[in-house]
Amino acid sequence: MNAIDELTESFSRLPGIGKKSAGRLVNFILKADSAYVKRFASQLNSLQEKIKPCSICGTWTESDPCPICTDTMRDRSVICVVEQPQDVATIESSHEFNGLFHVLGGIISPLDGIGPDQLNIASLLKRISDGSVTEIIIATNPTVEGDTTALYLQRMIAAAAGIKVTRLASGLPVGGDLEYADKLTLARSFRGRTSL
Amino acid sequence: MNAIDELTESFSRLPGIGKKSAGRLVNFILKADSAYVKRFASQLNSLQEKIKPCSICGTWTESDPCPICTDTMRDRSVICVVEQPQDVATIESSHEFNGLFHVLGGIISPLDGIGPDQLNIASLLKRISDGSVTEIIIATNPTVEGDTTALYLQRMIAAAAGIKVTRLASGLPVGGDLEYADKLTLARSFRGRTSL
Repeated sequence: MNAIDELTESFSRLPGIGKKSAGRLVNFILKADSAYVKRFASQLNSLQEKIKPCSICGTWTESDPCPICTDTMRDRSVICVVEQPQDVATIESSHEFNGLFHVLGGIISPLDGIGPDQLNIASLLKRISDGSVTEIIIATNPTVEGDTTALYLQRMIAAAAGIKVTRLASGLPVGGDLEYADKLTLARSFRGRTSL
Repeated sequence: MNAIDELTESFSRLPGIGKKSAGRLVNFILKADSAYVKRFASQLNSLQEKIKPCSICGTWTESDPCPICTDTMRDRSVICVVEQPQDVATIESSHEFNGLFHVLGGIISPLDGIGPDQLNIASLLKRISDGSVTEIIIATNPTVEGDTTALYLQRMIAAAAGIKVTRLASGLPVGGDLEYADKLTLARSFRGRTSL
């Protein structure tokens, strides 16, 4: 196996990249600016050393605790609970939320053998135990597993008095078309209708 | 810009990979087996040093001349002319051709400012000047530029007596459907029809 085949094999292990696309990427790399390729390789090489999960919220960060957890300008009474570290970046890019985050690191999924014990739930309960948090926004995906996890969390947290547990609204996407909405989304948009 | 954003930027410079896909790839790398990531980075880092164009045919190779040019079992009287180094691998994988190759390194394309002088045509004419080659198969893509380049080469080579210049057949793809064939392909499949 020569250097081209080896790199093709590595590229094809990336999600969504097959053997043919990997071959095209290697050909691009062969002809690419060598400064870019060297930089790319060194970024790839050092990523896992530089980036670790934040010891408080679990999001990927270069400094521990992460910039969000240490930001004194943020509302420390609200925690938004997400499935994956990348969800934090997605929500941050909407500029809609100014509280703190908590990353579960997955979702309750009995079929995949993932129960509540494998998720960062104990650390969440510990974070809210001092009474400074007044609302938990559950932002798991609007899927069966996401809903199950949200319900489970709601029951666990309900025990702690005075904490409101909310869930992101589910309904028609902005700019979408009624005609193309699936039945479940449409049903949910009816149940969650808001008064004008 | 932190390590995640930097690597995302590098991934998104790859062809066919946008900002969102790049983000997903970085998240995959963060969670991937670190031995794989280290190997991937070192392969990326060393590719351009290890792989060079063959000094005879121009295909990518680790050893110069390439294994195809030095293979004494191959038919040295036929040269297949292709546009890009990766076309050599594509043709090799069909196991249909046992001659030698010549990579033009591009195609005549006046709109992109590429004329015959920018292509490896002089080296091809030199290769056939000793009289050992009896056939040149032109395997440029069946596009306007590919056809133009084929015609140009045919005229250049015709001067050298005794060399047959051929072109890969163009027509309906195997397993295809007449209904979905475009007009130009259908027209060409009529003009190039073969007797049964």
